Amino acid sequence: MEEIKKYVEENKERFLNELFELIRIPSISSLSEHKPDMYRCAEQWTKIMLAAGADRAEVYETEGNPVAYGEKIIDPALPTVLVYGHMDVMPVDPIELWNTKPFEPVIKDGKIWARGADDDKGQAFMHAKAFEYLMKSGKLNCNVKFMIEGEEEIGSPSLPKFCRDHKDMLKADVILVSDTSMIGRDIPSITTGLRGLAYWQVEVTGPNADLHSGIFGGAVANPINVLCKLIADMQDEKGHITIPGFYDDVLEVTAEERAKMAKAPFNLENYKKSLDIKEVKGEEGFTTNERTGIRPTFDVCGIWGGYTGEGAKTVLPSKAYAKISCRLVPNQKHEKIAKLFKEYFESIAPDYVKVKVDYLHGGPSYVCPIDLPAYKAAEKAYEEVYGKQPVPVRSGGSIPIIATFEEVLGIKSVLMGFGLGSDAIHSPNENYPLEQFFNGITTIPLFYKYFGEIMKK
Amino acid sequence: MEEIKKYVEENKERFLNELFELIRIPSISSLSEHKPDMYRCAEQWTKIMLAAGADRAEVYETEGNPVAYGEKIIDPALPTVLVYGHMDVMPVDPIELWNTKPFEPVIKDGKIWARGADDDKGQAFMHAKAFEYLMKSGKLNCNVKFMIEGEEEIGSPSLPKFCRDHKDMLKADVILVSDTSMIGRDIPSITTGLRGLAYWQVEVTGPNADLHSGIFGGAVANPINVLCKLIADMQDEKGHITIPGFYDDVLEVTAEERAKMAKAPFNLENYKKSLDIKEVKGEEGFTTNERTGIRPTFDVCGIWGGYTGEGAKTVLPSKAYAKISCRLVPNQKHEKIAKLFKEYFESIAPDYVKVKVDYLHGGPSYVCPIDLPAYKAAEKAYEEVYGKQPVPVRSGGSIPIIATFEEVLGIKSVLMGFGLGSDAIHSPNENYPLEQFFNGITTIPLFYKYFGEIMKK
Repeated sequence: MEEIKKYVEENKERFLNELFELIRIPSISSLSEHKPDMYRCAEQWTKIMLAAGADRAEVYETEGNPVAYGEKIIDPALPTVLVYGHMDVMPVDPIELWNTKPFEPVIKDGKIWARGADDDKGQAFMHAKAFEYLMKSGKLNCNVKFMIEGEEEIGSPSLPKFCRDHKDMLKADVILVSDTSMIGRDIPSITTGLRGLAYWQVEVTGPNADLHSGIFGGAVANPINVLCKLIADMQDEKGHITIPGFYDDVLEVTAEERAKMAKAPFNLENYKKSLDIKEVKGEEGFTTNERTGIRPTFDVCGIWGGYTGEGAKTVLPSKAYAKISCRLVPNQKHEKIAKLFKEYFESIAPDYVKVKVDYLHGGPSYVCPIDLPAYKAAEKAYEEVYGKQPVPVRSGGSIPIIATFEEVLGIKSVLMGFGLGSDAIHSPNENYPLEQFFNGITTIPLFYKYFGEIMKK
Repeated sequence: MEEIKKYVEENKERFLNELFELIRIPSISSLSEHKPDMYRCAEQWTKIMLAAGADRAEVYETEGNPVAYGEKIIDPALPTVLVYGHMDVMPVDPIELWNTKPFEPVIKDGKIWARGADDDKGQAFMHAKAFEYLMKSGKLNCNVKFMIEGEEEIGSPSLPKFCRDHKDMLKADVILVSDTSMIGRDIPSITTGLRGLAYWQVEVTGPNADLHSGIFGGAVANPINVLCKLIADMQDEKGHITIPGFYDDVLEVTAEERAKMAKAPFNLENYKKSLDIKEVKGEEGFTTNERTGIRPTFDVCGIWGGYTGEGAKTVLPSKAYAKISCRLVPNQKHEKIAKLFKEYFESIAPDYVKVKVDYLHGGPSYVCPIDLPAYKAAEKAYEEVYGKQPVPVRSGGSIPIIATFEEVLGIKSVLMGFGLGSDAIHSPNENYPLEQFFNGITTIPLFYKYFGEIMKK
């Protein structure tokens, strides 16, 4: 480990400069105007792979954004690690809440501040530099493949087909991913569960034009009022989702497992304080960690309609919209939930409005067994760098593609995340501590070391 | 009347060109960037008044937008008519729904298409041209004063002070206003009642930053979900507003009056068809016309929060907002309703969010007695032009300043509106039929004639 640390120390400025080049490309996948940036980003990634020592690296077209793929095959007989990451980032609004420009990375207070600093440019880039170290030091003991996609933040719509089309090329013993976080900077953890996701846009139409709220108000249904009522009616007083059949496939977690989960360090007062909330709020009968780890959710991610400008405009609008997402837990099928949601929303919509439900995307949940050889290797790597065994954690987040990898490629993933809860991913002022970035580059080569050893046995 | 008609016929092109000059100034009062346009518009109005024959016309500063005031005093002993109108217009969004540019008036299908074509540039301008005719023909038999303000669409915040400060200058026997509509092009009507208004902006804050909806979703209250529930809870299944005390001061209308109201021509099927709705929706126990005429309302005029861009972004937002308005009926005090709303909204807000209620503006309701001399004069004027007696109508709209005139200046207003329900005021594709515009210019001089006669007795 000392040798790796020395290499990181000697190259840290260059590492940061290279990462910053990547961050400066505003690769927002949900906005079509950034399509050219996705290609610039993919090209940049192939350069990074080749510079680090890949035999070949190419930009692959998909039906959507491109995939950057590269590989170093040292011996087909050796185990193969497939590194997965994503080059795309979330939108940056509300832009006015950023303290710095989102695509001009700045180092301050020991952190990198920028969109993508953590999620996932910063974390994916650690793998490139770990690979570079292994090449330079002659210690690479596995074949390495990199698959960096450009649609993770919009649900990876094109990657399943890419995987099916390139099944042979992507053959590997494990997929290694850094796109999650640790419990704390001194509490390493490995994410062993991910929630699934279903995401809809709904549209409620009242009258066929915006109306004068005086002349028509009181006599014609206001689609915003109606949308609010529909949303309110989709959860009951106990925080349960009222969609019939929604919980049918939820795997209830045993009391024993819940007791084990409850041992994870967690301070509710600090949690509330850090979010500046008086009380937490969730499904009755579950703790905060259970609510995010093992229970599904119903969140309105966006809502709009009517007059939203400065001052007062009296209007009875024609339309109201919402973007709604449900996080799903293992065994819930997002396709089935999508159908149940649509049927229910349409069934409770009153006849004085029209409703439209569009399913934007979804993905399955995932569980990683803690006796997987690659998990064991990751465990040892973290332990060597952090001095303690990492805690296995069920995360509330979703990386839908992880479950798809298992389904399509038949390969399990190990989620070696180095993010922190305070990194503000998906929010203004996203950041990534330098300590985590450099620790990541130090830990990953150790994973290869132990993985190679375990697989040799 | 024939002489007036001839004058209108001979000058119609000039009238339209002059009106179009006024319309081309984008005097949107709710957007501060249009402040300079308010001054341009006020200057334009003084030119219009002077050209029509006013002794003097000036732009008066207020704490907000300016007032254009002009007058023609022929004899202090004669009755005085104060014409009130407004030069400001509503915003034009959603701009993409307009078929023509909102501030470039176009004549098509016998109508003027533009923002302000009816409300209130077109209607106020009729008074200038009626005055011009009276001057040119030597038939002016009353003193005339014009007060054209620039803040009607934002609730006339500065006009009450302007009235108090210029009480003597504004002395008159009646205030004449064209800012309402008739039942139909062949069914003249005069608005005898106006609803009051109260308008709030509410803000719901959950966590102190936008959060990852996976990592925090299910455990932290989502302010959009909460706002929807709060809004839904402010009306019950029967369409009643649940704010305690809200209906306390509502004057219940007698069965006899309701029977008289029910005689106004109204076809529910056509009404629904024209709005493309399957069903109307309002307070149980009242008809559509009662719901807009004699009952208060609760309408969300705008809502926003979270991600509202293209595609899917999973976020648990920090804040959600809504603009909410209540139309009020005679005897309901908007200041009291403002207080009740705020107290109730704050009281039902759960402790896992913070809420903020801002009262943006409000205004009282108004009733005009149908035995008022000026009402009688208006009645005769309409009858002469349209061939039938106008119907007295309680409108659902609000012109808060009308009640304020009564309070501050002690003068009743007569609402001689020539708009039509199909004019799409406050909406995309606002329009004003040429027929109504020219009929208005024809009817107004007849009002002066009869008003002068009645007042002489």
